[in-house]
Amino acid sequence: MLKKFLHNQVRSLGLEPGAPIYTGEKSDVDVMISAMRFSESTYEEKKGLTIEEALGLIQKDSLTWINVDGLSDSLLIQRLGREIDIHPLVIEDILNTSQRPKFEAFEYYFFVVLKMLFYGTNKREFNAEQVSLIVKENVVISFQEDIEGDVFDALRERIRTNKAQARKASSDYLAYLLIDAIVDNYFVIIEEVGEKIEALEVMVINKPSPKAMSKMHYLKQKMIFLRKSIWPLREVVSGMLREEDGQIKDSTKIFLRDIYDHTIQVIELIETCRDMISGLLDIYLSSNSNKLNEIMKVLTMISTIFIPLSFMASFYGMNFRFMPELSTPWGYPALIIAMVSVAVAMLFYFKRRRWL
Amino acid sequence: MLKKFLHNQVRSLGLEPGAPIYTGEKSDVDVMISAMRFSESTYEEKKGLTIEEALGLIQKDSLTWINVDGLSDSLLIQRLGREIDIHPLVIEDILNTSQRPKFEAFEYYFFVVLKMLFYGTNKREFNAEQVSLIVKENVVISFQEDIEGDVFDALRERIRTNKAQARKASSDYLAYLLIDAIVDNYFVIIEEVGEKIEALEVMVINKPSPKAMSKMHYLKQKMIFLRKSIWPLREVVSGMLREEDGQIKDSTKIFLRDIYDHTIQVIELIETCRDMISGLLDIYLSSNSNKLNEIMKVLTMISTIFIPLSFMASFYGMNFRFMPELSTPWGYPALIIAMVSVAVAMLFYFKRRRWL
Amino acid sequence: MLKKFLHNQVRSLGLEPGAPIYTGEKSDVDVMISAMRFSESTYEEKKGLTIEEALGLIQKDSLTWINVDGLSDSLLIQRLGREIDIHPLVIEDILNTSQRPKFEAFEYYFFVVLKMLFYGTNKREFNAEQVSLIVKENVVISFQEDIEGDVFDALRERIRTNKAQARKASSDYLAYLLIDAIVDNYFVIIEEVGEKIEALEVMVINKPSPKAMSKMHYLKQKMIFLRKSIWPLREVVSGMLREEDGQIKDSTKIFLRDIYDHTIQVIELIETCRDMISGLLDIYLSSNSNKLNEIMKVLTMISTIFIPLSFMASFYGMNFRFMPELSTPWGYPALIIAMVSVAVAMLFYFKRRRWL
Amino acid sequence: MLKKFLHNQVRSLGLEPGAPIYTGEKSDVDVMISAMRFSESTYEEKKGLTIEEALGLIQKDSLTWINVDGLSDSLLIQRLGREIDIHPLVIEDILNTSQRPKFEAFEYYFFVVLKMLFYGTNKREFNAEQVSLIVKENVVISFQEDIEGDVFDALRERIRTNKAQARKASSDYLAYLLIDAIVDNYFVIIEEVGEKIEALEVMVINKPSPKAMSKMHYLKQKMIFLRKSIWPLREVVSGMLREEDGQIKDSTKIFLRDIYDHTIQVIELIETCRDMISGLLDIYLSSNSNKLNEIMKVLTMISTIFIPLSFMASFYGMNFRFMPELSTPWGYPALIIAMVSVAVAMLFYFKRRRWL
Amino acid sequence: MLKKFLHNQVRSLGLEPGAPIYTGEKSDVDVMISAMRFSESTYEEKKGLTIEEALGLIQKDSLTWINVDGLSDSLLIQRLGREIDIHPLVIEDILNTSQRPKFEAFEYYFFVVLKMLFYGTNKREFNAEQVSLIVKENVVISFQEDIEGDVFDALRERIRTNKAQARKASSDYLAYLLIDAIVDNYFVIIEEVGEKIEALEVMVINKPSPKAMSKMHYLKQKMIFLRKSIWPLREVVSGMLREEDGQIKDSTKIFLRDIYDHTIQVIELIETCRDMISGLLDIYLSSNSNKLNEIMKVLTMISTIFIPLSFMASFYGMNFRFMPELSTPWGYPALIIAMVSVAVAMLFYFKRRRWL
Repeated sequence: MLKKFLHNQVRSLGLEPGAPIYTGEKSDVDVMISAMRFSESTYEEKKGLTIEEALGLIQKDSLTWINVDGLSDSLLIQRLGREIDIHPLVIEDILNTSQRPKFEAFEYYFFVVLKMLFYGTNKREFNAEQVSLIVKENVVISFQEDIEGDVFDALRERIRTNKAQARKASSDYLAYLLIDAIVDNYFVIIEEVGEKIEALEVMVINKPSPKAMSKMHYLKQKMIFLRKSIWPLREVVSGMLREEDGQIKDSTKIFLRDIYDHTIQVIELIETCRDMISGLLDIYLSSNSNKLNEIMKVLTMISTIFIPLSFMASFYGMNFRFMPELSTPWGYPALIIAMVSVAVAMLFYFKRRRWL
Repeated sequence: MLKKFLHNQVRSLGLEPGAPIYTGEKSDVDVMISAMRFSESTYEEKKGLTIEEALGLIQKDSLTWINVDGLSDSLLIQRLGREIDIHPLVIEDILNTSQRPKFEAFEYYFFVVLKMLFYGTNKREFNAEQVSLIVKENVVISFQEDIEGDVFDALRERIRTNKAQARKASSDYLAYLLIDAIVDNYFVIIEEVGEKIEALEVMVINKPSPKAMSKMHYLKQKMIFLRKSIWPLREVVSGMLREEDGQIKDSTKIFLRDIYDHTIQVIELIETCRDMISGLLDIYLSSNSNKLNEIMKVLTMISTIFIPLSFMASFYGMNFRFMPELSTPWGYPALIIAMVSVAVAMLFYFKRRRWL
Repeated sequence: MLKKFLHNQVRSLGLEPGAPIYTGEKSDVDVMISAMRFSESTYEEKKGLTIEEALGLIQKDSLTWINVDGLSDSLLIQRLGREIDIHPLVIEDILNTSQRPKFEAFEYYFFVVLKMLFYGTNKREFNAEQVSLIVKENVVISFQEDIEGDVFDALRERIRTNKAQARKASSDYLAYLLIDAIVDNYFVIIEEVGEKIEALEVMVINKPSPKAMSKMHYLKQKMIFLRKSIWPLREVVSGMLREEDGQIKDSTKIFLRDIYDHTIQVIELIETCRDMISGLLDIYLSSNSNKLNEIMKVLTMISTIFIPLSFMASFYGMNFRFMPELSTPWGYPALIIAMVSVAVAMLFYFKRRRWL
Repeated sequence: MLKKFLHNQVRSLGLEPGAPIYTGEKSDVDVMISAMRFSESTYEEKKGLTIEEALGLIQKDSLTWINVDGLSDSLLIQRLGREIDIHPLVIEDILNTSQRPKFEAFEYYFFVVLKMLFYGTNKREFNAEQVSLIVKENVVISFQEDIEGDVFDALRERIRTNKAQARKASSDYLAYLLIDAIVDNYFVIIEEVGEKIEALEVMVINKPSPKAMSKMHYLKQKMIFLRKSIWPLREVVSGMLREEDGQIKDSTKIFLRDIYDHTIQVIELIETCRDMISGLLDIYLSSNSNKLNEIMKVLTMISTIFIPLSFMASFYGMNFRFMPELSTPWGYPALIIAMVSVAVAMLFYFKRRRWL
Repeated sequence: MLKKFLHNQVRSLGLEPGAPIYTGEKSDVDVMISAMRFSESTYEEKKGLTIEEALGLIQKDSLTWINVDGLSDSLLIQRLGREIDIHPLVIEDILNTSQRPKFEAFEYYFFVVLKMLFYGTNKREFNAEQVSLIVKENVVISFQEDIEGDVFDALRERIRTNKAQARKASSDYLAYLLIDAIVDNYFVIIEEVGEKIEALEVMVINKPSPKAMSKMHYLKQKMIFLRKSIWPLREVVSGMLREEDGQIKDSTKIFLRDIYDHTIQVIELIETCRDMISGLLDIYLSSNSNKLNEIMKVLTMISTIFIPLSFMASFYGMNFRFMPELSTPWGYPALIIAMVSVAVAMLFYFKRRRWL
């Protein structure tokens, strides 16, 4: 997982700053551009556009959301950037998929990078994709690494059916809606992780095994990854709340405060998960040491009872010619009584020590 | 416990922000509205009201406290919000019962979310309910998840009997009284937890068992939950102290400072509890390792004394035809003397090593 | 110890804020009021006063120090508060003996709560008492929980004998002198604890036993208590240093800076003690595991040497009719040589592994 | 590694502050000065210069980058400092190679110290060299400890080939490019370390051995070193971002913000690595204790089954004359049945305890 | 070590604040006053002065450095304080040798307390002495606890030989030089400690013994002491940097920034040392548990191989009359084959489990 973070970063080594190089893994994905344009009364949706077609849709009296799936064609992205007059470093950040979540305000637009986490068709592992948003006055452009799935379907549906306020919105509010959809999905991911932790808890308490240990390790690493992806979000949202050039309207900021609260909540949940995992580790280790104690107790009891008895038996198995006990008739029963006494004394001793 | 936090959050996924959806567990609880209206000289109390009846009670020269128990009927809550002109996000926050405690000031009212913790009829587990307060000039509206029990009975009684200052108060002071009642109950909860920790301490010191370990784990999780519920309170109260639009009067702020002190105290107590639990874990682990040492000592002593003796016995149990010792009359007594010497030497060695 | 903190707090549950209820343990202590009035040239001391007598002593041109021992008669304290026009919450704080140390400035007076720690006649355990100070222009009123002993005797003596500057002082400087006496005693307490830690260190290094573990636990809890009592002092003193209404004179603030330094020093000493205790725990655990290793080494060596030998002896103790070795004359000496060889080889092996 | 940090520092003990003494290890390296001068249209590169030649290259309308390899000749460096009017303490800092990374702005120039980490020809260990930059209006002077290799080759090539913006740049932008090259290489180092951690993870999970432990220790120390070298970078860059005298242009600051992001990312990666290593330690210790448990289980099972059986065998190996069992024909088969029963009972017991 | 800190503090208990009592250990040291007076062109040095002689040396156009060794004669120090008009609390701080390092600015002078650490003639333990500096316009007065040795000899020599800038300096620069000498010596101390840590590392990795553990403990305590002594220095120097009344010149502040950097470096080194020691503890504990595992493996292998064999031997040592195996000629060789098979099977089992 660490590796994934790193080798992307390294690929762009030695290049001019602002050089547009896609550093992600999905280099064989075709770029696909789709767009929605809508105002309170009108609505239009198009797919498979070229850059020029997409940018041509932008109009003053309506809001256009252009979604770019796939970042492998870095030249195309760079051209798009030039067309709408974006700083080269922003284009580099869009293409560098190991970017840390951040918010940057420029004169005519602002730029947000986030990590989108969601369960695709394969429910076992969540996908992690970088989503970048460029928000200008009448247009929001979103960039995703992959075509397959995102977390915006519910939002698209709400726009199509003109429910509630989505269509009335300005571009900053649309950006809010996109970020909100991403943050909401964090809860799904953490719920899933939380369920795994609870399953693990049952396992550790009932049947601690090395397998539980490796699962703990796996979850811990997952939490490190989640923390890394989500933690910077706080700064992103508080950066947006502090934005003062009017690109983000006060009415939108009320909603962003809501996201801020959610972000704090997600971060707290992650910390809680970490606490719980390390609590499980304590239980695991202590139950391990309990098991060792129990094993040792059994061994010790068996040994301690039988070792003296075995000695007595061996003793009278000696072949000395002159052993008077051997030839008397009471020798054998006397020894048996002695043996039983020793065993009972030992058991009594264990009882008193609370080992039984 | 984590699960409880999470699945509520997830239920509202994909909805319009501000959509009023109750996310709590008690969805089968009827909504029940009651109200108290009082001034220094007058007093009136009503139960089982409709929204319109409750809001109709509000008058300029007296203070009305409307209490809403049960949040399952989200449309009703939403209608109430519209009637008194509350922001939709506030209504969403009231209905979302996994809300983090917070304070938000709006132009004509302020909004507080808290966690109410209290022991109900069943004394073994405390209940956790979200309480939301909307405070306007002449009215305080409180929202609770459940009808059964709250921590405000003593306050109600004081209002009824016109004791001290409760009736003279403005709406912000009434809000303070409600928050104070909630915070006071935190001490009850922590006292209970503290008693469990001390009982556990006795148990761990006297008879450390795996059961103690699982109790420790349980208390640790409880502390994580308490911390999560109470920690944000500090920000809530300090936010109220910083409020500067005059909605919270300076005379009330003196009392809020008192709550602030209590909050710090509660948080410190929680930290103390955590410290004590982790101290117990240390004791538990070390007493576990002591027990292992003790067991091993017994095993080692028994083994070390008898293994050489057994060897000697086995030795003279061999059937070689030519073993001169076997046929001499002093062979047997000499061996016994040798065996006693070995045993005594061993015991002396243990004594010197302080194992006895 | 935790319990003590808590059950006091809980007793006042459900009461009107500002309700004067004594929450301490010493409810059977009589209230005793004494007073000293002095200026540079005059000096007067009285004991067993009533409130009215005590307050009657206050004069413009001299400084009066009224000391109230015992808080059980809460109505009396409340009356005193009303007489000198103190906010009801302050009276509540004086009576609530689980108060966190704090400083609060009001218009005509300021209020300080501290924990006084000192060794009484019984040197084994230190006493912890809450001391509250109300400081007005010509009078300082101090409240203590108990009559028996405090840390102000040296100060009283200095006032009586008119040494140095005590008598020339204003009320804020007298308050400083009282706080200084309390803080100085913290060093005595920590020195005592430090000596116990060093005694424990000797014990843990020389003869680690479960008793050492429980002593460690005891000291750890003591440190938690001390930390809780002393830590807030920093805020108290820095609050006094920031006071800007002239109630605390600049000349006094120079001395308060000195107390501030002492407070930081005390806090650092407490942290040092905590570090040392946790260092001891490491030593204890590691010496425990060393002991286990040593025990196991002895067991293993004895077992490993004698188990093969015993097998050989048992082998030739078998009763097969056709065992040629048994009937040859060199069988017995050959076996003895073999046994010695095995034993020597084993010892050599242990030597090489550095187990001997 | 610690030693390396320290003995350099100590060498300059007792000297006048600002005394130019090289404290590094590479005291036998010749000083070698090279320079590049370029503007958008012109380009010139020279090697093996004297100080005077190098400084003579500086012109108003072009940018000169002077690179000094080797710091052993402290007098020469001192002379260079005097020629371009640099504060003596800056010269001391350049020569003191255990300097902490820092940024300092003076009236006509600013000064940056960084740690350059890179893999040389020997890929097993990265080199750590101190790089100091003095940035004036038309010139950037960089100081390196060693001639062999640096991380600027790609940059030099870009300048030579006049690619992109390198040549158009002002001196502050060139400084940015140098810092950027250094920071980019941190990712290479951490990627390498990350790969070692992942290899170690496989090793610890599959075959935990003391060797893994010492590797963990080695990596941990490496991380301490990296953290020490890189952590202060954050302050360096944020210091540059706060610089307000116009030495660092706003257009450059946009790029520095980018470096700042990278720095945060590097620091987070280092923390992640530390987390992972300490996670590995947990796994290692727990798998160690698992192994012990497993070993003990085998020993206990073998012992517990055979010790009673051996006792029974010894018992009937006794030589009492009167042992009726010995002479009955069913004695032998009965004993065999008894032995099998005991063994089966034991196995059944283990089965129930889940030891098998 | 803790004790040393404390009993000094306690000795002054119950005294008037500002009461001049020497609390150090070296109460039998005579006070010895020496002075150097110098300007750029003149130089004078005197020893064994009285207070009056020393103060008489002060002149307007030159700088006088008065050094006071030995603090036992507190009245003398107090008299000195009065002569040069120093606040009584400053005199108390000079005499209280468990003072925390601090910086305090007064109207006509400033006051600095530091801990001087250095190796005396006995190289095994470093000395720790408190050094106080009073800096007025034309004079610096330094107070040391002991006559024997300090860290200023190199500085004295530089002043005598008029090297570099020492003589040109103002009193604040001279104070800087003194502090610089003290801080430089911290590196010597930490280098020494660092070497001990590395020696310990070798010891722990190669031959972990309880002795290593107690050395670790010793070093850990040393680090606690060093941290306590050096940590406050950061505040001291940053306090001096913030001083704004012109007592510390801007030209000196540039040099103080250098000390600030060094202080940060020392603190980081101490933290690094602490990290390394706790890393060693991990290694020690894990190698301890490795050793236990290894011992147990040997024991288990020996036991597991021989216990079944011994049982077989005992079995055929039984004296039943009817044991057909005993009388057949193939019985003995068959048993030997069986025994060898069992041993080989066991060894094979261990091999597969990777215990060999």
